Amino acid sequence: MANAPHMDELACAEAFLHANIPLTRAMGVRVLPDMQFGFAVEAPVALNYNHLRTGFGGSINAIATLAAYCFLWLPLGESCDVVVRESTIRFVRPAKEMIRACCRPPSDAELELLARRLAEKHRGHIHLCVSVSEDGVVAEFKGTFVAISRVAKS
Amino acid sequence: MANAPHMDELACAEAFLHANIPLTRAMGVRVLPDMQFGFAVEAPVALNYNHLRTGFGGSINAIATLAAYCFLWLPLGESCDVVVRESTIRFVRPAKEMIRACCRPPSDAELELLARRLAEKHRGHIHLCVSVSEDGVVAEFKGTFVAISRVAKS
Repeated sequence: MANAPHMDELACAEAFLHANIPLTRAMGVRVLPDMQFGFAVEAPVALNYNHLRTGFGGSINAIATLAAYCFLWLPLGESCDVVVRESTIRFVRPAKEMIRACCRPPSDAELELLARRLAEKHRGHIHLCVSVSEDGVVAEFKGTFVAISRVAKS
Repeated sequence: MANAPHMDELACAEAFLHANIPLTRAMGVRVLPDMQFGFAVEAPVALNYNHLRTGFGGSINAIATLAAYCFLWLPLGESCDVVVRESTIRFVRPAKEMIRACCRPPSDAELELLARRLAEKHRGHIHLCVSVSEDGVVAEFKGTFVAISRVAKS
């Protein structure tokens, strides 16, 4: 699950976001490779600024949420629906030009537990941490995400 | 601070959002009167849906954040800059047609403490709770917001 995704998978993930979550087009969201974390979700402050002309907190939160979604969508694909149950975000300093979010892979044990729950109960949850950075930490996001196998719903 | 704002104040707040946080236009954000809480910030799911065609969690969080901003902006006006330091959101059930967020007024003591800190130290923080609802609770949001007097920056 934690292998770095290929470029065409990232392009598919970006196209999925633009087609299915239309606000991501207005936000200028992109899904790009990242050397450390495999991929990043990013969007320019120019389309996501606030009254102080820095990254809008609502956009930063949305982009962090999308990074976590993509972390699960990339391996799970069409087999599951993924939703966010709760999240917390701490803003450290303003984003000036680019809001760039990377999901930190959880431990193998956590990923195996999610896979086992999906196989046995058709649903499972996982805690994911996302860092938003731009020459240092902009925000730290933690969320609980639920994956529901589409088998369970049919 | 907790008096219900007038219609023209709400129209000004909405115009301020649209002019200064451009994503609010793409989201179709409106600031409207609310019988219980004085005002509500809302936006249609039609412009804010996710891959399941319900309200996107990132939009719900953004709209809740804006309700808290407006709660502070309406009385503080141009005298302060307001930023969000941290926030937590718990999603209870999907929004189907409208994402509507109302900020619950804090106690008079909390408001007085913020006013005193602004007067004495030119900055202060306050914890705000926002409910997002649509025939029942959609999400519960809590955030810590910082107000910085513009006098302190000049």
